[in-house]
Amino acid sequence: MSDAPVLTAYGWVPKSVRGKVRDLRIRWACEEIGLPYRTHLLDATAPRGEDYVRWHPFDQVPAWRDDEVEMFESGAILLRLAEGHDRLLPTDPAVRWRAISWLFAAFSSIEPPLAIPTIIKVFNRDQPWAEDASRIRADFARKRLRRLADALGEKDYLVGPFTIADIAMSTVFLVDSLDLVEEQPVLVAYRERCRSRPAFARALDAQLADFTFDPPATR
Amino acid sequence: MSDAPVLTAYGWVPKSVRGKVRDLRIRWACEEIGLPYRTHLLDATAPRGEDYVRWHPFDQVPAWRDDEVEMFESGAILLRLAEGHDRLLPTDPAVRWRAISWLFAAFSSIEPPLAIPTIIKVFNRDQPWAEDASRIRADFARKRLRRLADALGEKDYLVGPFTIADIAMSTVFLVDSLDLVEEQPVLVAYRERCRSRPAFARALDAQLADFTFDPPATR
Repeated sequence: MSDAPVLTAYGWVPKSVRGKVRDLRIRWACEEIGLPYRTHLLDATAPRGEDYVRWHPFDQVPAWRDDEVEMFESGAILLRLAEGHDRLLPTDPAVRWRAISWLFAAFSSIEPPLAIPTIIKVFNRDQPWAEDASRIRADFARKRLRRLADALGEKDYLVGPFTIADIAMSTVFLVDSLDLVEEQPVLVAYRERCRSRPAFARALDAQLADFTFDPPATR
Repeated sequence: MSDAPVLTAYGWVPKSVRGKVRDLRIRWACEEIGLPYRTHLLDATAPRGEDYVRWHPFDQVPAWRDDEVEMFESGAILLRLAEGHDRLLPTDPAVRWRAISWLFAAFSSIEPPLAIPTIIKVFNRDQPWAEDASRIRADFARKRLRRLADALGEKDYLVGPFTIADIAMSTVFLVDSLDLVEEQPVLVAYRERCRSRPAFARALDAQLADFTFDPPATR
């Protein structure tokens, strides 16, 4: 097992974000393709230090190391894991590149508008304008989500078969703490379809099982 | 030329965004590898219609079509163009996947924090809270930019040789209308190093030359 690739994750996070930390999507992809990995657990409550910043320049999780590469950014790691696995990224070029388009769309076209109203509401909650600003930005997020629902239509997954784009998109929804996704029945059904996969359940269990550090107050 | 790949772009945009529209980065990559392309010019002032939305679900530019694929999202298109071109994405796995990490980082870790203060300031300028909200979010963007400057250090480009990650990052800076990038001399020098490449100049000229539609008021 010492040769298994290494994924970074946190050893403790507040209860409200358990099951939502971004290493979840990498664990999920590993479970889908049956790739064993080891976790390197980090302290979420303090800067990780210069060695880690050389690996992950923004000092976050996940980062990934295997026998060839040292990477960061979950979209990039998903792509690395999917290379050569038809099950997560079809080899037919038309489908493959459509899936890669959607992989980027999850992080570029859905996550930012979905995250902004939450960021404003949570991080700027002491400001008198937080509610107003959050509401206005939520309206833009709704437009994007409606377009996403239209594009999904009656398909099970974004490009037909399940791909890394679905891992990305259905976990990007986790940034939405205003329940904007809940307003779109097509997207709720899609999210539940993704999350009902056995590999997702194993990934979620694995993330929860890794919260083994003592809470900060008791250290 | 009828078999050349097709890139979508706008036939007219306001002067303030000329040279900043996102098809620029695709033109740039094409110029770097010497790939001819045709542009399909769209009207930026009206919805593009259902046919286009089937191609680009968010009804934006750029979209891309070649003899194998129909794509959207500039990050994905950059990756498509770079496949098999060592000049834009080294084949050595360690360097290649570090570049892909940075490609995603440009869109996921730099563009959203850099865009948010501008979005609030511009789109919500009639709100009494716009200045406050923009300033607070700008402080977070500054932190990200400092980390980016630290990661770049004394290197010419993000992973050493010039790659699609540099095309992405140096054009992502274009969303910053608050001059936050200007505060980081390392990033200003990096941006100018990228933009001084002959392929960039040709791409910029090509975008500007395609603004051939009459202004909306005169149509």
